Amino acid sequence: MSKHNFETPDACEAAFYEAFERADLKGVMACWAEQEELVCIHPQGPRLTGHAAVRESFLQIFSNGLSLRVELVQGMQFQSEVIAVHCVLERVTMKDEKRTPPPISATNVFARTDEGWRMIAHHASPTASTEAIAASQHTLH
Amino acid sequence: MSKHNFETPDACEAAFYEAFERADLKGVMACWAEQEELVCIHPQGPRLTGHAAVRESFLQIFSNGLSLRVELVQGMQFQSEVIAVHCVLERVTMKDEKRTPPPISATNVFARTDEGWRMIAHHASPTASTEAIAASQHTLH
Repeated sequence: MSKHNFETPDACEAAFYEAFERADLKGVMACWAEQEELVCIHPQGPRLTGHAAVRESFLQIFSNGLSLRVELVQGMQFQSEVIAVHCVLERVTMKDEKRTPPPISATNVFARTDEGWRMIAHHASPTASTEAIAASQHTLH
Repeated sequence: MSKHNFETPDACEAAFYEAFERADLKGVMACWAEQEELVCIHPQGPRLTGHAAVRESFLQIFSNGLSLRVELVQGMQFQSEVIAVHCVLERVTMKDEKRTPPPISATNVFARTDEGWRMIAHHASPTASTEAIAASQHTLH
């Protein structure tokens, strides 16, 4: 079994974020299903579909040369035999950065393919977390 | 069969947006699964979980008294026996409003429950559509 034949959606998701942190374009793209029916929405970005557009978007992100860290907070997970949906919070920080930016909400969708579990949709958007709102309200008082 | 025992994810989704346009809180909530494991993210809002929080959020939206129209543009759909994922664009306008705001990207997740297909996750975020970007670039030239 190739290292990209992920046995679970969790394994695929972990590999995706690890490759993202390494700015490893090949590693990130190996987590996506090979089908063209893919959806990728980066925070405040357009809806991208198809391998070429998704690949290009990560190439652009990585070309910034930023060293990003992603702490993943799992939320709800829904899973069937062939589809899994993970609603997660991404805490994305730059290496050596002390400031904690607002978390990013992501809905990650995985499909069980002939090559194991792969990502078929990634929808990420900036989110005011209830914790962040509570904290900011606290600060204001 | 009750009118809320939706036979397909499409029927549930259509009922959800129709109820939303009518500011029909009961109608909107009837589209959600009865389980507490729900995720709802309104554009730029926090991640809400559970019936009470989801209900409260729609109550707040509807209490604005705005008459909203939603034109739904279907994108990718992924479906298994028990889970369906729809990646859609929502073109939300106020009635009698001529201006077209940027579309909202939504990822809607449905589960087949004992009461038919119901929504279990709704992740909506403002999105620069590629068409909108193309149009704005055209305008600038």
